[in-house]
Amino acid sequence: MSSLMYRETHEGPAVLKRLEAENRQVLTALSKTFHSRNVRHVVLAGRGTSDHAAVFASYLFTILGGCVCTIAEPSAITLYEAEPDYSGTLVLAVSQSGQAADALAVLQQGKRCGAVTCAVTNDPESPLAREAEYHLFCACGPERSVAATKTFTAELGLMILLGAYLFDRPDLAAALEQTAEPLEDLFRQEEAVREAVAPFRYSSVGFVLSRGYGYPLALEAALKLNETCCLPFRGYASSDFYHGPLAQVDPQSAVIVFAPAGPALADLERMTERLTSIGASPLFVTDDPSAAVRWPKHFLLPAAPSEETAPLLLASFLQLFACFLSEERGTSPDAPRYLSKVTVTR
Amino acid sequence: MSSLMYRETHEGPAVLKRLEAENRQVLTALSKTFHSRNVRHVVLAGRGTSDHAAVFASYLFTILGGCVCTIAEPSAITLYEAEPDYSGTLVLAVSQSGQAADALAVLQQGKRCGAVTCAVTNDPESPLAREAEYHLFCACGPERSVAATKTFTAELGLMILLGAYLFDRPDLAAALEQTAEPLEDLFRQEEAVREAVAPFRYSSVGFVLSRGYGYPLALEAALKLNETCCLPFRGYASSDFYHGPLAQVDPQSAVIVFAPAGPALADLERMTERLTSIGASPLFVTDDPSAAVRWPKHFLLPAAPSEETAPLLLASFLQLFACFLSEERGTSPDAPRYLSKVTVTR
Repeated sequence: MSSLMYRETHEGPAVLKRLEAENRQVLTALSKTFHSRNVRHVVLAGRGTSDHAAVFASYLFTILGGCVCTIAEPSAITLYEAEPDYSGTLVLAVSQSGQAADALAVLQQGKRCGAVTCAVTNDPESPLAREAEYHLFCACGPERSVAATKTFTAELGLMILLGAYLFDRPDLAAALEQTAEPLEDLFRQEEAVREAVAPFRYSSVGFVLSRGYGYPLALEAALKLNETCCLPFRGYASSDFYHGPLAQVDPQSAVIVFAPAGPALADLERMTERLTSIGASPLFVTDDPSAAVRWPKHFLLPAAPSEETAPLLLASFLQLFACFLSEERGTSPDAPRYLSKVTVTR
Repeated sequence: MSSLMYRETHEGPAVLKRLEAENRQVLTALSKTFHSRNVRHVVLAGRGTSDHAAVFASYLFTILGGCVCTIAEPSAITLYEAEPDYSGTLVLAVSQSGQAADALAVLQQGKRCGAVTCAVTNDPESPLAREAEYHLFCACGPERSVAATKTFTAELGLMILLGAYLFDRPDLAAALEQTAEPLEDLFRQEEAVREAVAPFRYSSVGFVLSRGYGYPLALEAALKLNETCCLPFRGYASSDFYHGPLAQVDPQSAVIVFAPAGPALADLERMTERLTSIGASPLFVTDDPSAAVRWPKHFLLPAAPSEETAPLLLASFLQLFACFLSEERGTSPDAPRYLSKVTVTR
C-alpha cells in the first residue's frame, strides 16, 4: 500500500490541468483591479511550504512585471503591533488550510490600508478565503498527507497563472497546462528517482542549493527532508552559500544542486565545481541535458515548456525524493514526528 | 595570543560610542530627504552578515515607523535582468567592504528609479559608498578577521540610529550609546560564556531559534558557527520552526534559543518547553532574569537600556560563543576553511 504522500504527489498533473478553469473568473477580475489601481507592489505572507510558494512568486512577479515584492514579517504585526503601510499594494496570503493566523493578520492589515487582498488556499470556506477580496483556489480536494505535496504544486501553479494574467503573458498559462505532460514523464521515471535516492540513505546532514527560480524549491526540498526523514537538510541560495555557509560542507555532507536551465545555471555549475573540489559529491538535478552529463551524479528532469514552469518539475521531483528516502530509511513519510497537519502560529 | 576575531569583538563598545558622532550629519540630511519625499517603503540589500543587519532593520523600521520593508532579491536583477520599480523608496545597501556587486546592482536600480539611496559600509572609498547618495559609515577601522564581528555591531548600531532619526526617537540614539556599558559587562563575564560553550564541544548539528528582533541574531549565530566551527547550525524563527523543521530535532541536537525580553519571549518559552519535551536540552539565552531561571541551561545577558538595542548584546554574545567554541574544538576562528574576507557575488 503506497503512502498518502506518494499518492497525493501523483495528483499534481491533474491539479495543473484544472487550475485555470477553476480560477479564470477570479484571475480576470483581480487582474482588472490590479491595473485599474495601478499596483506596482505585492506583499506576500505564508509559512513553511506556502512561504516557499510566496518566495517563488516574488521572483516571478519581479522578473515578469518589475513589481517590488515584499515577503511580510507577520510577527511584526502579531507580536509588536506594527502597522505597516500596505496602501497601494496587492496583499497575497498563502495557506493551504486557509487557517494561518499570521497570514490572516497580514491580510487584515492590508484591508485596513485599502490594499487589494487575495488569499490562496485549498478551502473556500476557510478564514483566509472568507476575509480576502479575491480567493484563488488550489482545487486539490482534501490533502491528507501531513507533508504538503499537491497543494504546493497548486500554489506554484496559481502564482504562474497570476503572473500570466497580471502581466499579460497568456503563453505562461498555456505552458502551465502543458507542464502536466513532462510531470507525467517524471512519474514514469520513478525508478531512476529511487536510484538517485539510494546514496543518501545513510546521510546525516545535507544541503540543497539553487538560485533564482530554483531557490524556493531548494528551501522546499530541505523542508520535505526535515519532515519526512527527520534529516537536518538546509536550503540555500548559492549566492548566499559562498558567504560563510560553505565552510560547513565536508566530504560526508549530502549535497543536492537544483540547476534548471536558465540564467542561474552557470553559477550553479560553478558552485558544483567548488563543492566537488572540496570532496563533496553533489547530486546535480537539471533539465539541461548538456549540463547534466558534465556531472558524475546527476538526474535529468524532463524539459518543461518554459523556464517559469520548470520549478513544477523540481517540486514533484523533491516530493518523490523525500517520499522514497523516507521509505529507504525505514520510516513512513505519512508520520512525521512531532508535526500536525494544520499549524496556526500567531 | 588571542585571535583577531576575539580582539575585534571587543572593539564593539568603542564602535557604539563613536557611531552617532561619525554619522550625525548624514543621518540628519537623510532623515530630511526621507520626510520631504514622504518615503514609506525601504528596500534593503546585503549578503551574509550584512543581510542579517538588513533583516534586523526591516523589523525595526516596520515596528517603529510602519514602513514596509523589502529584502531585495539581487539575483532577479543581476541574473534575470528584472527592473523592479523602486520609485518612492529608500534603497539601503549594506556591505562591510562596500564591494558587494549584488547590493550595488540593487542600489543602482534604485537610482534609475529615482529612489533615495544609502550605503552602509566600513569603507568610504568603496564602490557602494561612492555610488550612493548617502553613506553611513561603520567607522570600525579595518576588519581583519574573516568572520565579521565589529562591523556587524556597527551595522546594527547604524540601523538603530537610522530608526532613531527617521522616526524621531532620540531616546534610541541615547540608548545605543548607553548599550556600550552592558556590553562591557558581558565581556567581564567571559568565563561564563566559556562555560556555556563547553557542552557544545562535540555537537555535530544544531539550531538557533528566536523571533522578532532576535531572529536576525539567530541567523547570524548560525552563520558564525558555520564559519568558525564548520558546524551545520541553522537559524530559524520559532514561528517557522513549528511548520516542519521541528521534526529534525533529536535529543543529540544542539539547540540555542535567543529569547530577549519583549513580545516574543512567551512564544520562545513555549518553543523551549516543546524542545525539552522531545528530549533536547536547549541553551536559553535571555536578558530576563525571571525567565532565565525557569530553564536549567541558561545564560543571563546584562540588561540593555531598551528592547531595540538588546540585539547588540546577543551579537557580542554569539561572536564570543563562536570564537570560544572554535577554540574548544581545536580550530582557529581566524582561519575558516574555504572562505575569504571579501566575497563578490553577482
